[in-house]
Amino acid sequence: MIRRLSLTLAGALAVFLAGCATPTTEPLNLTTAKKAVVGYVESGQYERQVQAVATEAVRTVEARVARRRAGEKLAVVFDIDETIISNLPHMRAMDFGYVPKLWDAWVDRGEGPAIAPVVEVYRTARRLGVEVFFLTGRHESDRPGTLKNLAAIGCGDFRELILKPPGTSQTTGEFKTATRRRIMESGYAIIANIGDQVSDLEGGFAERTFKLPGPFYIVQ
Amino acid sequence: MIRRLSLTLAGALAVFLAGCATPTTEPLNLTTAKKAVVGYVESGQYERQVQAVATEAVRTVEARVARRRAGEKLAVVFDIDETIISNLPHMRAMDFGYVPKLWDAWVDRGEGPAIAPVVEVYRTARRLGVEVFFLTGRHESDRPGTLKNLAAIGCGDFRELILKPPGTSQTTGEFKTATRRRIMESGYAIIANIGDQVSDLEGGFAERTFKLPGPFYIVQ
Repeated sequence: MIRRLSLTLAGALAVFLAGCATPTTEPLNLTTAKKAVVGYVESGQYERQVQAVATEAVRTVEARVARRRAGEKLAVVFDIDETIISNLPHMRAMDFGYVPKLWDAWVDRGEGPAIAPVVEVYRTARRLGVEVFFLTGRHESDRPGTLKNLAAIGCGDFRELILKPPGTSQTTGEFKTATRRRIMESGYAIIANIGDQVSDLEGGFAERTFKLPGPFYIVQ
Repeated sequence: MIRRLSLTLAGALAVFLAGCATPTTEPLNLTTAKKAVVGYVESGQYERQVQAVATEAVRTVEARVARRRAGEKLAVVFDIDETIISNLPHMRAMDFGYVPKLWDAWVDRGEGPAIAPVVEVYRTARRLGVEVFFLTGRHESDRPGTLKNLAAIGCGDFRELILKPPGTSQTTGEFKTATRRRIMESGYAIIANIGDQVSDLEGGFAERTFKLPGPFYIVQ
Protein backbone atom coordinates (compact mmCIF):
# COMPACT_ATOMS: atom_id res chain seq x y z
CA MET A 1 0.00 0.00 0.00
CA ILE A 2 2.78 2.36 0.98
CA ARG A 3 4.71 1.23 -2.07
CA ARG A 4 1.75 1.95 -4.30
CA LEU A 5 1.29 5.34 -2.74
CA SER A 6 4.89 6.26 -3.35
CA LEU A 7 4.64 5.16 -6.96
CA THR A 8 1.48 7.16 -7.45
CA LEU A 9 3.18 10.18 -5.96
CA ALA A 10 6.23 9.65 -8.12
CA GLY A 11 3.98 9.48 -11.15
CA ALA A 12 2.06 12.57 -10.15
CA LEU A 13 5.30 14.38 -9.45
CA ALA A 14 6.67 13.45 -12.85
CA VAL A 15 3.53 14.79 -14.49
CA PHE A 16 3.87 18.05 -12.61
CA LEU A 17 7.55 18.32 -13.36
CA ALA A 18 6.84 17.78 -17.03
CA GLY A 19 3.86 20.07 -17.10
CA CYS A 20 4.95 23.07 -15.14
CA ALA A 21 8.60 23.08 -14.15
CA THR A 22 10.63 25.81 -15.83
CA PRO A 23 11.28 24.39 -19.27
CA THR A 24 14.87 24.07 -20.31
CA THR A 25 13.64 25.30 -23.67
CA GLU A 26 10.72 27.45 -24.71
CA PRO A 27 8.69 29.51 -22.24
CA LEU A 28 4.91 29.58 -22.16
CA ASN A 29 3.56 31.17 -25.32
CA LEU A 30 2.21 34.65 -24.59
CA THR A 31 -1.01 34.04 -26.55
CA THR A 32 -1.67 31.10 -24.25
CA ALA A 33 -0.95 33.20 -21.15
CA LYS A 34 -3.27 35.97 -22.38
CA LYS A 35 -6.03 33.49 -23.17
CA ALA A 36 -5.87 32.17 -19.61
CA VAL A 37 -6.29 35.71 -18.28
CA VAL A 38 -9.17 36.49 -20.67
CA GLY A 39 -10.83 33.23 -19.69
CA TYR A 40 -10.43 34.08 -16.02
CA VAL A 41 -12.19 37.41 -16.63
CA GLU A 42 -14.89 36.17 -19.01
CA SER A 43 -15.81 33.17 -16.87
CA GLY A 44 -16.74 35.54 -14.05
CA GLN A 45 -14.02 34.10 -11.79
CA TYR A 46 -12.20 37.42 -11.60
CA GLU A 47 -15.32 39.29 -10.54
CA ARG A 48 -16.19 36.63 -7.97
CA GLN A 49 -12.76 36.86 -6.39
CA VAL A 50 -12.93 40.66 -6.33
CA GLN A 51 -16.36 40.40 -4.71
CA ALA A 52 -15.11 38.01 -2.03
CA VAL A 53 -12.23 40.30 -1.05
CA ALA A 54 -14.44 43.41 -1.10
CA THR A 55 -17.14 41.76 1.01
CA GLU A 56 -14.53 40.95 3.63
CA ALA A 57 -13.27 44.55 3.50
CA VAL A 58 -16.80 45.91 4.01
CA ARG A 59 -17.24 43.64 7.05
CA THR A 60 -13.89 44.74 8.45
CA VAL A 61 -14.71 48.43 8.07
CA GLU A 62 -18.11 47.99 9.71
CA ALA A 63 -16.70 45.96 12.60
CA ARG A 64 -13.83 48.37 13.17
CA VAL A 65 -16.13 51.40 13.15
CA ALA A 66 -18.35 49.66 15.70
CA ARG A 67 -15.46 49.60 18.15
CA ARG A 68 -14.13 53.04 17.25
CA ARG A 69 -12.86 54.94 20.28
CA ALA A 70 -14.04 58.49 20.91
CA GLY A 71 -12.15 61.00 18.78
CA GLU A 72 -10.41 58.30 16.74
CA LYS A 73 -9.78 59.32 13.13
CA LEU A 74 -10.26 56.30 10.84
CA ALA A 75 -9.17 55.98 7.22
CA VAL A 76 -9.22 53.48 4.38
CA VAL A 77 -6.47 53.58 1.74
CA PHE A 78 -7.43 52.53 -1.78
CA ASP A 79 -5.16 51.90 -4.70
CA ILE A 80 -6.82 52.98 -7.95
CA ASP A 81 -5.91 50.88 -11.03
CA GLU A 82 -7.49 47.41 -11.03
CA THR A 83 -8.68 48.27 -7.51
CA ILE A 84 -11.51 50.77 -7.93
CA ILE A 85 -11.04 51.72 -11.61
CA SER A 86 -10.75 48.96 -14.18
CA ASN A 87 -8.48 49.45 -17.17
CA LEU A 88 -9.66 46.29 -18.88
CA PRO A 89 -11.11 48.07 -21.94
CA HIS A 90 -7.73 49.65 -22.64
CA MET A 91 -5.69 46.58 -21.72
CA ARG A 92 -7.76 44.38 -24.01
CA ALA A 93 -7.55 46.91 -26.87
CA MET A 94 -3.76 46.80 -26.36
CA ASP A 95 -3.74 42.98 -26.24
CA PHE A 96 -2.28 43.47 -22.73
CA GLY A 97 0.76 45.40 -23.92
CA TYR A 98 1.74 48.43 -21.85
CA VAL A 99 2.72 51.35 -24.07
CA PRO A 100 3.24 54.42 -21.85
CA LYS A 101 2.00 57.06 -24.35
CA LEU A 102 -1.20 55.14 -25.10
CA TRP A 103 -1.76 54.30 -21.43
CA ASP A 104 -1.43 57.99 -20.54
CA ALA A 105 -3.95 58.96 -23.25
CA TRP A 106 -6.38 56.38 -21.84
CA VAL A 107 -5.90 57.68 -18.28
CA ASP A 108 -6.44 61.27 -19.46
CA ARG A 109 -9.84 60.31 -20.87
CA GLY A 110 -10.98 59.28 -17.40
CA GLU A 111 -13.36 56.64 -18.69
CA GLY A 112 -12.29 53.54 -16.82
CA PRO A 113 -15.27 51.58 -15.50
CA ALA A 114 -15.89 51.16 -11.79
CA ILE A 115 -14.95 47.97 -9.98
CA ALA A 116 -18.34 47.85 -8.31
CA PRO A 117 -17.58 45.65 -5.27
CA VAL A 118 -14.74 47.99 -4.27
CA VAL A 119 -16.90 51.06 -4.81
CA GLU A 120 -19.12 49.40 -2.20
CA VAL A 121 -16.18 49.42 0.23
CA TYR A 122 -15.69 53.12 -0.51
CA ARG A 123 -19.40 53.81 0.10
CA THR A 124 -19.36 51.88 3.36
CA ALA A 125 -16.40 53.92 4.56
CA ARG A 126 -17.96 57.26 3.67
CA ARG A 127 -21.35 56.30 5.10
CA LEU A 128 -19.68 55.48 8.42
CA GLY A 129 -17.58 58.64 8.53
CA VAL A 130 -14.32 56.92 7.63
CA GLU A 131 -11.96 59.08 5.53
CA VAL A 132 -10.80 57.82 2.15
CA PHE A 133 -7.30 58.21 0.75
CA PHE A 134 -6.62 57.24 -2.85
CA LEU A 135 -2.95 56.32 -3.13
CA THR A 136 -1.77 55.48 -6.63
CA GLY A 137 1.33 54.86 -8.69
CA ARG A 138 -0.21 57.10 -11.35
CA HIS A 139 1.82 60.25 -11.82
CA GLU A 140 0.97 63.76 -10.71
CA SER A 141 0.42 64.59 -14.40
CA ASP A 142 -2.44 62.07 -14.38
CA ARG A 143 -4.38 64.05 -11.77
CA PRO A 144 -7.00 65.63 -14.07
CA GLY A 145 -7.95 62.35 -15.74
CA THR A 146 -7.93 60.55 -12.40
CA LEU A 147 -10.17 63.14 -10.73
CA LYS A 148 -12.55 62.96 -13.68
CA ASN A 149 -12.66 59.17 -13.52
CA LEU A 150 -13.17 59.01 -9.76
CA ALA A 151 -16.04 61.48 -10.05
CA ALA A 152 -17.55 59.49 -12.93
CA ILE A 153 -17.68 56.30 -10.85
CA GLY A 154 -19.18 58.12 -7.87
CA CYS A 155 -16.02 58.21 -5.76
CA GLY A 156 -15.41 61.94 -5.67
CA ASP A 157 -15.71 62.35 -1.90
CA PHE A 158 -12.28 61.64 -0.43
CA ARG A 159 -9.72 63.20 1.91
CA GLU A 160 -6.79 63.06 -0.49
CA LEU A 161 -5.74 61.79 -3.89
CA ILE A 162 -2.03 61.08 -3.68
CA LEU A 163 -0.16 60.50 -6.96
CA LYS A 164 3.48 59.73 -7.51
CA PRO A 165 5.45 63.00 -7.62
CA PRO A 166 7.61 63.75 -10.65
CA GLY A 167 11.27 62.84 -10.54
CA THR A 168 11.08 60.45 -7.61
CA SER A 169 13.54 57.58 -7.48
CA GLN A 170 11.28 55.56 -5.19
CA THR A 171 9.57 52.41 -6.36
CA THR A 172 5.79 52.58 -6.20
CA GLY A 173 5.93 50.28 -3.17
CA GLU A 174 8.35 52.57 -1.32
CA PHE A 175 6.32 55.64 -2.20
CA LYS A 176 3.13 54.01 -0.94
CA THR A 177 4.65 52.78 2.31
CA ALA A 178 6.12 56.23 3.05
CA THR A 179 2.77 57.85 2.28
CA ARG A 180 0.84 55.51 4.60
CA ARG A 181 3.36 56.27 7.33
CA ARG A 182 2.74 59.99 6.78
CA ILE A 183 -1.04 59.44 6.92
CA MET A 184 -0.77 57.53 10.20
CA GLU A 185 1.62 60.10 11.65
CA SER A 186 -0.93 62.80 10.82
CA GLY A 187 -3.28 61.04 13.22
CA TYR A 188 -5.27 58.51 11.18
CA ALA A 189 -5.71 54.85 11.94
CA ILE A 190 -5.60 53.13 8.53
CA ILE A 191 -8.15 50.42 9.24
CA ALA A 192 -7.92 48.88 5.77
CA ASN A 193 -5.57 49.11 2.79
CA ILE A 194 -6.90 47.62 -0.43
CA GLY A 195 -5.10 47.01 -3.71
CA ASP A 196 -4.35 44.51 -6.47
CA GLN A 197 -0.56 44.66 -6.21
CA VAL A 198 1.75 43.32 -3.52
CA SER A 199 3.43 46.74 -3.70
CA ASP A 200 0.13 48.34 -2.64
CA LEU A 201 0.07 46.34 0.55
CA GLU A 202 3.49 45.38 1.83
CA GLY A 203 5.51 47.67 4.09
CA GLY A 204 3.03 47.97 6.93
CA PHE A 205 1.15 51.01 8.19
CA ALA A 206 -2.31 49.50 7.97
CA GLU A 207 -4.35 47.43 10.42
CA ARG A 208 -5.58 45.13 7.64
CA THR A 209 -4.63 44.62 4.01
CA PHE A 210 -6.92 43.34 1.25
CA LYS A 211 -5.34 41.79 -1.81
CA LEU A 212 -7.48 41.83 -4.92
CA PRO A 213 -6.64 39.49 -7.80
CA GLY A 214 -4.33 41.04 -10.39
CA PRO A 215 -3.13 38.76 -13.20
CA PHE A 216 -2.66 41.60 -15.71
CA TYR A 217 0.64 43.18 -14.72
CA ILE A 218 3.05 43.66 -11.84
CA VAL A 219 3.99 47.04 -10.37
CA GLN A 220 6.99 47.07 -8.08
CA MET B 1 12.83 3.42 3.44
CA ILE B 2 9.82 3.21 1.19
CA ARG B 3 7.86 5.12 3.75
CA ARG B 4 10.47 7.88 3.82
CA LEU B 5 10.52 8.00 0.06
CA SER B 6 6.79 8.39 -0.12
CA LEU B 7 6.89 11.20 2.43
CA THR B 8 9.64 12.95 0.52
CA LEU B 9 7.64 12.63 -2.66
CA ALA B 10 4.53 13.88 -0.92
CA GLY B 11 6.48 16.89 0.29
CA ALA B 12 7.98 17.57 -3.11
CA LEU B 13 4.59 17.18 -4.71
CA ALA B 14 3.07 19.65 -2.27
CA VAL B 15 5.78 22.16 -3.13
CA PHE B 16 5.12 21.75 -6.83
CA LEU B 17 1.38 21.90 -6.37
CA ALA B 18 1.79 25.13 -4.43
CA GLY B 19 4.37 26.56 -6.78
CA CYS B 20 3.18 25.77 -10.22
CA ALA B 21 -0.03 23.80 -10.52
CA THR B 22 -2.80 25.66 -12.30
CA PRO B 23 -4.34 27.67 -9.52
CA THR B 24 -8.06 27.22 -9.02
CA THR B 25 -8.01 30.97 -8.88
CA GLU B 26 -5.67 33.45 -10.51
CA PRO B 27 -3.81 32.71 -13.75
CA LEU B 28 -0.13 33.40 -14.29
CA ASN B 29 0.53 37.13 -14.17
CA LEU B 30 1.24 38.48 -17.66
CA THR B 31 4.26 40.47 -16.49
CA THR B 32 5.74 37.20 -15.24
CA ALA B 33 4.97 35.47 -18.55
CA LYS B 34 6.56 38.31 -20.54
CA LYS B 35 9.65 38.32 -18.31
CA ALA B 36 10.14 34.62 -19.00
CA VAL B 37 10.01 35.30 -22.76
CA VAL B 38 12.40 38.26 -22.51
CA GLY B 39 14.77 36.17 -20.40
CA TYR B 40 14.62 33.40 -22.97
CA VAL B 41 15.63 35.88 -25.68
CA GLU B 42 18.23 37.82 -23.71
CA SER B 43 19.94 34.71 -22.35
CA GLY B 44 20.72 33.68 -25.92
CA GLN B 45 18.61 30.51 -25.56
CA TYR B 46 16.21 31.63 -28.28
CA GLU B 47 19.00 32.25 -30.77
CA ARG B 48 20.66 28.94 -29.93
CA GLN B 49 17.45 27.04 -30.56
CA VAL B 50 16.88 28.89 -33.84
CA GLN B 51 20.45 28.07 -34.82
CA ALA B 52 20.02 24.38 -34.05
CA VAL B 53 16.88 24.10 -36.20
CA ALA B 54 18.42 26.12 -39.04
CA THR B 55 21.60 24.04 -39.02
CA GLU B 56 19.53 20.91 -39.42
CA ALA B 57 17.60 22.55 -42.27
CA VAL B 58 20.83 23.48 -44.06
CA ARG B 59 22.03 19.87 -43.75
CA THR B 60 18.73 18.57 -45.06
CA VAL B 61 18.76 20.88 -48.08
CA GLU B 62 22.36 19.94 -48.92
CA ALA B 63 21.71 16.21 -48.55
CA ARG B 64 18.52 16.35 -50.59
CA VAL B 65 20.17 18.32 -53.39
CA ALA B 66 22.97 15.75 -53.46
CA ARG B 67 20.44 13.07 -54.38
CA ARG B 68 18.38 15.26 -56.69
CA ARG B 69 17.11 13.37 -59.73
CA ALA B 70 17.66 14.83 -63.20
CA GLY B 71 15.10 17.49 -64.02
CA GLU B 72 13.68 17.53 -60.50
CA LYS B 73 12.45 20.98 -59.41
CA LEU B 74 13.23 21.54 -55.73
CA ALA B 75 11.82 24.22 -53.47
CA VAL B 76 12.02 25.40 -49.88
CA VAL B 77 9.01 27.15 -48.31
CA PHE B 78 9.74 29.80 -45.70
CA ASP B 79 7.32 31.51 -43.39
CA ILE B 80 8.35 35.14 -42.81
CA ASP B 81 7.53 36.53 -39.34
CA GLU B 82 9.73 35.13 -36.58
CA THR B 83 11.13 32.80 -39.24
CA ILE B 84 13.35 34.94 -41.46
CA ILE B 85 12.29 38.44 -40.31
CA SER B 86 12.25 39.21 -36.60
CA ASN B 87 9.59 41.53 -35.23
CA LEU B 88 11.17 41.64 -31.79
CA PRO B 89 11.89 45.40 -31.87
CA HIS B 90 8.21 46.12 -32.49
CA MET B 91 6.92 43.42 -30.14
CA ARG B 92 9.09 44.69 -27.30
CA ALA B 93 8.09 48.32 -27.95
CA MET B 94 4.48 47.10 -27.71
CA ASP B 95 5.21 45.12 -24.53
CA PHE B 96 4.08 42.10 -26.60
CA GLY B 97 0.62 43.46 -27.29
CA TYR B 98 -0.70 43.00 -30.83
CA VAL B 99 -2.48 46.13 -32.05
CA PRO B 100 -3.33 45.66 -35.75
CA LYS B 101 -2.91 49.30 -36.82
CA LEU B 102 0.49 49.63 -35.16
CA TRP B 103 1.60 46.22 -36.40
CA ASP B 104 0.69 47.21 -39.97
CA ALA B 105 2.64 50.47 -39.66
CA TRP B 106 5.67 48.48 -38.47
CA VAL B 107 5.36 46.02 -41.36
CA ASP B 108 5.06 48.90 -43.85
CA ARG B 109 8.40 50.29 -42.68
CA GLY B 110 10.10 47.07 -43.72
CA GLU B 111 12.79 47.33 -41.05
CA GLY B 112 12.56 44.00 -39.28
CA PRO B 113 15.99 42.51 -38.62
CA ALA B 114 17.10 39.27 -40.25
CA ILE B 115 17.01 35.99 -38.39
CA ALA B 116 20.54 35.17 -39.50
CA PRO B 117 20.57 31.37 -39.14
CA VAL B 118 17.47 31.11 -41.33
CA VAL B 119 18.91 33.51 -43.90
CA GLU B 120 21.69 30.92 -44.07
CA VAL B 121 19.11 28.28 -45.03
CA TYR B 122 17.83 30.64 -47.74
CA ARG B 123 21.40 31.20 -49.04
CA THR B 124 22.09 27.49 -49.07
CA ALA B 125 18.95 26.88 -51.10
CA ARG B 126 19.72 29.59 -53.65
CA ARG B 127 23.39 28.57 -53.93
CA LEU B 128 22.30 25.03 -54.77
CA GLY B 129 19.66 26.08 -57.29
CA VAL B 130 16.70 25.36 -55.03
CA GLU B 131 13.75 27.73 -55.52
CA VAL B 132 12.46 29.76 -52.58
CA PHE B 133 8.81 30.43 -51.80
CA PHE B 134 7.90 32.87 -49.04
CA LEU B 135 4.48 31.93 -47.71
CA THR B 136 3.10 34.24 -45.07
CA GLY B 137 -0.03 35.07 -43.13
CA ARG B 138 0.72 38.74 -43.82
CA HIS B 139 -1.93 40.27 -46.03
CA GLU B 140 -1.66 41.23 -49.67
CA SER B 141 -1.71 44.89 -48.54
CA ASP B 142 1.59 44.20 -46.72
CA ARG B 143 3.38 43.34 -49.98
CA PRO B 144 5.38 46.59 -50.42
CA GLY B 145 6.74 46.58 -46.85
CA THR B 146 7.45 42.86 -47.05
CA LEU B 147 9.33 43.15 -50.36
CA LYS B 148 11.35 46.04 -48.95
CA ASN B 149 12.20 44.07 -45.82
CA LEU B 150 13.16 40.89 -47.69
CA ALA B 151 15.44 42.93 -49.94
CA ALA B 152 16.98 44.69 -46.91
CA ILE B 153 17.95 41.38 -45.28
CA GLY B 154 19.42 40.05 -48.55
CA CYS B 155 16.56 37.68 -49.37
CA GLY B 156 15.24 39.32 -52.52
CA ASP B 157 15.90 36.37 -54.83
CA PHE B 158 12.87 34.11 -54.66
CA ARG B 159 10.35 32.39 -56.88
CA GLU B 160 7.23 33.77 -55.23
CA LEU B 161 6.04 35.83 -52.28
CA ILE B 162 2.60 34.55 -51.37
CA LEU B 163 0.53 36.68 -49.00
CA LYS B 164 -2.95 36.04 -47.66
CA PRO B 165 -5.51 37.34 -50.15
CA PRO B 166 -8.11 39.86 -48.99
CA GLY B 167 -11.49 38.59 -47.85
CA THR B 168 -10.50 34.96 -47.38
CA SER B 169 -12.33 32.96 -44.76
CA GLN B 170 -9.47 30.47 -44.46
CA THR B 171 -7.33 30.25 -41.37
CA THR B 172 -3.67 30.95 -42.00
CA GLY B 173 -3.01 27.23 -41.60
CA GLU B 174 -5.60 26.31 -44.24
CA PHE B 175 -4.31 28.97 -46.61
CA LYS B 176 -0.75 27.74 -46.24
CA THR B 177 -1.61 24.08 -46.70
CA ALA B 178 -3.63 24.86 -49.85
CA THR B 179 -0.76 26.96 -51.20
CA ARG B 180 1.84 24.24 -50.61
CA ARG B 181 -0.45 21.79 -52.42
CA ARG B 182 -0.64 24.20 -55.35
CA ILE B 183 3.19 24.58 -55.38
CA MET B 184 3.68 20.80 -55.40
CA GLU B 185 1.01 20.36 -58.08
CA SER B 186 2.87 22.89 -60.22
CA GLY B 187 5.79 20.44 -60.22
CA TYR B 188 7.98 21.33 -57.24
CA ALA B 189 9.20 18.99 -54.56
CA ILE B 190 9.04 21.00 -51.33
CA ILE B 191 12.11 19.58 -49.67
CA ALA B 192 11.80 21.71 -46.56
CA ASN B 193 9.12 23.88 -44.95
CA ILE B 194 10.34 26.14 -42.17
CA GLY B 195 8.33 28.27 -39.75
CA ASP B 196 7.76 29.22 -36.12
CA GLN B 197 4.06 28.32 -35.97
CA VAL B 198 2.39 24.93 -35.97
CA SER B 199 0.06 26.43 -38.60
CA ASP B 200 3.09 26.97 -40.86
CA LEU B 201 3.90 23.30 -40.83
CA GLU B 202 0.90 21.07 -40.29
CA GLY B 203 -1.25 19.88 -43.18
CA GLY B 204 1.42 18.11 -45.19
CA PHE B 205 2.81 18.91 -48.64
CA ALA B 206 6.46 19.04 -47.62
CA GLU B 207 9.13 16.34 -47.34
CA ARG B 208 10.44 17.79 -44.08
CA THR B 209 9.21 20.44 -41.66
CA PHE B 210 11.37 22.60 -39.39
CA LYS B 211 9.79 24.12 -36.33
CA LEU B 212 11.50 27.20 -34.97
CA PRO B 213 10.80 28.32 -31.42
CA GLY B 214 7.96 30.83 -31.13
CA PRO B 215 6.91 31.87 -27.62
CA PHE B 216 5.64 35.29 -28.69
CA TYR B 217 2.21 34.58 -30.18
CA ILE B 218 0.09 31.90 -31.80
CA VAL B 219 -1.31 32.14 -35.34
CA GLN B 220 -3.99 29.63 -36.19
